[in-house]
Amino acid sequence: MIGVGLIGGSIALAARERLGATVIGYDESPQALGTAVTRGVLDQAYDDPDQAVAGTETVFVAVPVSALGEAVGAALAATPASAVVTDVGSTKREVVCAHDHPRFVGGHPLAGAESAGVEHARADLFDGAVWYLTPTSRTSGVLYERLHRLLRGLGARPVAIDAETHDTILATVSHLPHVLANVLVSQAARALDLGGERLPATGPSFRDATRVAGAPSRVWTDIYMSNRDALAARIDETVARLGAVREALKSGDRDAITAWNEMAATDRRRLVESQLAGEALSELRVSVPNRPGVIAELALELGRAGVNIADMALYPAADMTEGVVALWFAGEAATERARRLVQELGFPVALA
Amino acid sequence: MIGVGLIGGSIALAARERLGATVIGYDESPQALGTAVTRGVLDQAYDDPDQAVAGTETVFVAVPVSALGEAVGAALAATPASAVVTDVGSTKREVVCAHDHPRFVGGHPLAGAESAGVEHARADLFDGAVWYLTPTSRTSGVLYERLHRLLRGLGARPVAIDAETHDTILATVSHLPHVLANVLVSQAARALDLGGERLPATGPSFRDATRVAGAPSRVWTDIYMSNRDALAARIDETVARLGAVREALKSGDRDAITAWNEMAATDRRRLVESQLAGEALSELRVSVPNRPGVIAELALELGRAGVNIADMALYPAADMTEGVVALWFAGEAATERARRLVQELGFPVALA
Repeated sequence: MIGVGLIGGSIALAARERLGATVIGYDESPQALGTAVTRGVLDQAYDDPDQAVAGTETVFVAVPVSALGEAVGAALAATPASAVVTDVGSTKREVVCAHDHPRFVGGHPLAGAESAGVEHARADLFDGAVWYLTPTSRTSGVLYERLHRLLRGLGARPVAIDAETHDTILATVSHLPHVLANVLVSQAARALDLGGERLPATGPSFRDATRVAGAPSRVWTDIYMSNRDALAARIDETVARLGAVREALKSGDRDAITAWNEMAATDRRRLVESQLAGEALSELRVSVPNRPGVIAELALELGRAGVNIADMALYPAADMTEGVVALWFAGEAATERARRLVQELGFPVALA
Repeated sequence: MIGVGLIGGSIALAARERLGATVIGYDESPQALGTAVTRGVLDQAYDDPDQAVAGTETVFVAVPVSALGEAVGAALAATPASAVVTDVGSTKREVVCAHDHPRFVGGHPLAGAESAGVEHARADLFDGAVWYLTPTSRTSGVLYERLHRLLRGLGARPVAIDAETHDTILATVSHLPHVLANVLVSQAARALDLGGERLPATGPSFRDATRVAGAPSRVWTDIYMSNRDALAARIDETVARLGAVREALKSGDRDAITAWNEMAATDRRRLVESQLAGEALSELRVSVPNRPGVIAELALELGRAGVNIADMALYPAADMTEGVVALWFAGEAATERARRLVQELGFPVALA
């Protein structure tokens, strides 16, 4: 574990408690490292990152986004050929471009908490949380599958996605809401200053909309900067949408306002419904040649089609020239879509 | 009670349970009226609004914003000279301009709930909630004070504000967050459609920011339309602020992004702190001449200066030519500011 804060510490706790793993950690803050050992988050602590990762199977790099590139490179250099290196950064293109290496898989758990720091680490932080993985055509299938299984063991739901799409989606569903919260809170503060009014005990809409305003710059400046092109494009779209609402208001177009509001209601319902899950799992068995990128290809193709791999396992043949991947899906519809997609990719597939 | 939904029903329940009031109600829906009687929300129900208000001391008009003007006018016409009429609409300029009458005081409680309808009415809905009142220079001081005291009795915190400022503030802290939530949810839905991706189980920032998206058009089209000029101006400001962020992102200006984020953090902290209250109450006694508008003048001047009147009581002299208003404030600082402001207005004032 390179970086033992809230996320790194929570991974370590879950890995120890749920998987019986031995967890070795490094953090540039000796204080954080001390707390981690005292709290039982780590089995062992090192004050040198290369020493910490030297004999490990899996390295999680959980440092600020701006420090990811260097830390991932160092971890790849210091680990044996059997080790997979992953990270937990909120943006993915930069680090994935910098390290298109068979043993590196970009990652991003959609989990967090109000309070940062290893003292708030919890073994259940990732329960049910989507954990994005961004394999590429160079990614080792064996290592990808091992990482996927490990994340499942932590309680998370790994989802394969390409780094580009990841950053676009996150710009919309995370970075943009943070920008809007910042804008809204400053706009309200200025409006109330000008009016000489104290902020009213505002309703829930303002509190909800501004809860993430002014998130720690230590973390968020990096996120904004590393995803700035995608985020700027999303802001442009928001401005265009606001312009349309403004026109309808200015021209007093009651029907347009109602239609716009109804569309938002429909969109919200769709988004909420698409997040419901929890059906029984079905298993598909896919025969695959043992070449680099084949697991990533499968995972990404299914991810692109919106079919989530609930779980996976890889069984190489004795001569290692090919193998079987077992893939689990939630619900009949997803399983059937997956079967067809895998077939279209040219791999023999059967329901187990 | 004209209109017995969530808000009207909750006022009725609180008035009966906490003030021992007899509450008579009308609703255009016979079903809502039936439920109100069955649930013990009303003492009596009428199928004619004029009959319902005929012998009452206080009329609450709790109907949709677009129906307020007519309902308030009817209530003023059907009530005796001793009755105060108020409303609970989310925008205030329209109805206040339409009825600048000594017996009408515009009102707006900042309270609500996820579920509409009288079946969700609760006596504690207004506990600690700000309840805006918009008196004008024509407002009867006696009736204003009676209404203020009644709202305190319901558990609310009445705050005097002029209708114009009310609508500007609400555009910023309520209507704009609703617009942004709508825009965000539709933008995300479209982005995920285009990418062929299912919405990820998004983090808390998206859920919080879009919780109010697609609020009922039945209520919200009226609100948007009745405050459309103020809301359009707020949208323009948001667009300008988004433009500044976008430029900083495009030019890669890391320091500007950090400064902007830190400003949002500061603004959020200020806003949250300004909402902390709960100090001991002090009482000021102010001698006032018995002329229309004097109570409104006091209340609005204090409101403009951000000094909240926690409670008030009016004691007219025997010959009714002048009287004493007792005003309560939370904390020493607010009391001292109030004393100076009242003195500057030219009224004799003493700490009780």
